[in-house]
Amino acid sequence: MEGTSTPISREELQLAARNHGMPLEALRYDVTPVGLHYLLIHYDIPAVDTASWRLEVGGCVARELRLTLDELRGRPAVTAAVTMECAGNGRAALEPHIVSQPWLLEAVGTGEWTGARVLPLLEEAGLRDDAVEVVFRGSDRGVEGGEQQSYERSLTIEQLAAADPLVAYELNGAPLPPQHGNPLRLVVPGWYGMTNVKWLEAITAVAEPFTGYQQARSYRFRAHEDDPGTPVTRMLPRALMVPPGIPDFITRQRTVVAGAPVELEGRAWSGWGAITEVAVSADGGASWAPADLGPSSGPAVWRAWRFSWTPPGPGSYELCCRARDDAGNVQPLEPEWNVGGYANNAVQRVAVQVD
Amino acid sequence: MEGTSTPISREELQLAARNHGMPLEALRYDVTPVGLHYLLIHYDIPAVDTASWRLEVGGCVARELRLTLDELRGRPAVTAAVTMECAGNGRAALEPHIVSQPWLLEAVGTGEWTGARVLPLLEEAGLRDDAVEVVFRGSDRGVEGGEQQSYERSLTIEQLAAADPLVAYELNGAPLPPQHGNPLRLVVPGWYGMTNVKWLEAITAVAEPFTGYQQARSYRFRAHEDDPGTPVTRMLPRALMVPPGIPDFITRQRTVVAGAPVELEGRAWSGWGAITEVAVSADGGASWAPADLGPSSGPAVWRAWRFSWTPPGPGSYELCCRARDDAGNVQPLEPEWNVGGYANNAVQRVAVQVD
Repeated sequence: MEGTSTPISREELQLAARNHGMPLEALRYDVTPVGLHYLLIHYDIPAVDTASWRLEVGGCVARELRLTLDELRGRPAVTAAVTMECAGNGRAALEPHIVSQPWLLEAVGTGEWTGARVLPLLEEAGLRDDAVEVVFRGSDRGVEGGEQQSYERSLTIEQLAAADPLVAYELNGAPLPPQHGNPLRLVVPGWYGMTNVKWLEAITAVAEPFTGYQQARSYRFRAHEDDPGTPVTRMLPRALMVPPGIPDFITRQRTVVAGAPVELEGRAWSGWGAITEVAVSADGGASWAPADLGPSSGPAVWRAWRFSWTPPGPGSYELCCRARDDAGNVQPLEPEWNVGGYANNAVQRVAVQVD
Repeated sequence: MEGTSTPISREELQLAARNHGMPLEALRYDVTPVGLHYLLIHYDIPAVDTASWRLEVGGCVARELRLTLDELRGRPAVTAAVTMECAGNGRAALEPHIVSQPWLLEAVGTGEWTGARVLPLLEEAGLRDDAVEVVFRGSDRGVEGGEQQSYERSLTIEQLAAADPLVAYELNGAPLPPQHGNPLRLVVPGWYGMTNVKWLEAITAVAEPFTGYQQARSYRFRAHEDDPGTPVTRMLPRALMVPPGIPDFITRQRTVVAGAPVELEGRAWSGWGAITEVAVSADGGASWAPADLGPSSGPAVWRAWRFSWTPPGPGSYELCCRARDDAGNVQPLEPEWNVGGYANNAVQRVAVQVD
C-alpha cells in the first residue's frame, strides 16, 4: 500500500474514527450521497437551535444585518455542485510523520449546495472602503494550539470577489445535515475544505488582516516550525480512481480476474483551473497513457475520466492516475513535505493482483 | 484516553478511513441523522441497478419468490427505530492487540427503518419443515480469511421467529443510502450489526446449519486460535455519554468550566432486555450514582439517560457510565479479550479537566 509504515497513535485513531473519508468506490457518483462525503470536524458538532439562530453580518459595514434562516431562504437561491477536499488529504503518506487527522486519499466529496450568494449580503450591509477582509465564524468551539477558540477563517475582499461563495442551507436538496454545518455553512468553490466554515453564525468585515489561529498559525505551508509560511488556499489538482476488482477485507488488496479489460473510472479536480488531462499508468508510473475525459468542468467540480486497461497477463500491477489543469499544474509523483502536512497531491498508487 | 497505547497499522488505518463511528455528541439525537450512523462495510459498496434487482426467496420452500422493490413496497410496511452496534465496537481497547477494524467506542447508531417483515415472506414462499436456518446473502463481494465470498449470514428458524426482522428499503424516511444497503437490507432488532446483511439479494432456507465464513469462522467468541468458539449474537448492554465541555482538536481532551453543574447525557441499550439502570461515576469507577432514565425501551432501541454532575472543584476527573439490563447483564469494568475482539462492552471512561 501507499506511503510508509509509520504507525498511527491512539490520538490519531480517535480523529480517524470521527472524521471519515469518502470510500473511493463512491467516485462513481456525480454528486456524493450524504454520508459518503468526507467530513473533518475540528471540535464537536454543535447543537444549534435554528429558531433562535441568526446570521450576523457586521464589522466594517454601514448597517449590521441579523438574518433568520427564513430570510436567507427568501433571497435568490443558487444551487451549485462543488468539489471539496480537505487540505490535509494525503497527510498520512508523508514522512517524517505528522500528527493530525491521518488522511490517506479519501478526504473529498462533491455536494450539490443550495444557498444565497455572500457578495449581495455584504452589499446590502454596505461594506465600507476600509474593509480588507471578511471573517467567517462558526459556532463550534474547542482548543487548538493551546488557544480556546471558535472556528474562524477569513477571505480578502479580492478573494471573495473572485470565488463568489455561497452561504448554503441545503446539501443535495435537503436541509444541511448536522455534520455539514446545519443550519448554514460557507461554500467557497475551488478552495480547500478549511475555508468552508460550518455552523456559520457571523460574517464580520475587518480593517486589518485576520490573525486568528486557523489563519495565521494553522493552514500554512511551512518548511519548518519557525517558518511563518504561506497560506493554504485553493485545491491542487488530483485524480483518483475507483480501485478495481474486489478487496480483501483486512488488507484492501485488490484482485482482478485475468483475461478481460478492466474498465477503470475516476474523477479529477483542481481549484486552479479546468482539468485538461488525466493520464493512467499500469506500471507504477514508468509509462502513461491518456484517459478519456467526461464533460469539461471549471475549478468548482470534479471531472469524470475512464480508461480501459487490458492486463497483459496474471501478476502484480501498480495502477496510477495523474491530473493536469489548464493553469499548468500537474500532480507530483512523490509527496512534498511541509510541517502541517497540507496539499500532498502525489499520484494515487493502487496495487492490483491479476489472477 | 481509554485503552493502551499499541499503535495502529496502516492497514487498520485504511479500514478506519472508510468505516466510521458515530461522533459521540450525536448521542443527543433519538434517531441518528444519516451520515452519523456508524458504518462497517466488509468489501466495497456495490453498484446495484434497482431496475433489474430482484430479491430471491428460495431453498427449502414450496415456491420460490422473485420480488421487485415495488412488490416489496406494496406489502404491509413496518417502521421501527432500531439501535445497531458493530460486534467489534471496543476492539481497539483490547490487549493483546487485534488487527481488524479498530473501533474505539463509536460503532453505534439508531436508524428508523421501514420495510416488510421477513416471516410473512417465508410463509408466502411456503417454508418447508426440513428448513433449519435461513441464509441472507448480500451482493457485496470480497476476500476474507483467504476465501472469495459474497457477504452471507444465517439465522435459525427459532431466532427468526423471536427477532421478527425486517427487510428495509428506507432509513429515516428516505430510500436507503448506498452505504446502508440500497436497495434492501436485513434489520434484526437486538442483534449486533453483522447480522443485518446489506445489499440483500437472496434469502435461502437451508436444511443444514450454514457454515459460511461469516458464520463458522468469523463472528465467534474464541479463547484461542484453535477454539471453535460460540456465536456472536445479540448486543451486550452498553451506556455511552456525550463527552462534556469542549475538546482539544488533536487529543480530544475535554475541558469543562468550574462552578456550574455539568448536565451529562447519553444513551444505553442491550439486545438482551430493557435497560433498567445506568450508573455514573466521576471518580473512575470508585463510586457510582444512578442516572435519570428516559422512557423505557425494549431490546430494539437505546434509552436516554441524564445525570447532573457538580464537580467539587477544579482538577482532573474520570467520568464513567455503566448500564444494566433486565436480563441481569451489567457492563464489566475491564475489557474481556477474545480472538476476534468482539463485544467488548467495558465501561466508557472520559477524562475531563475542570478549569
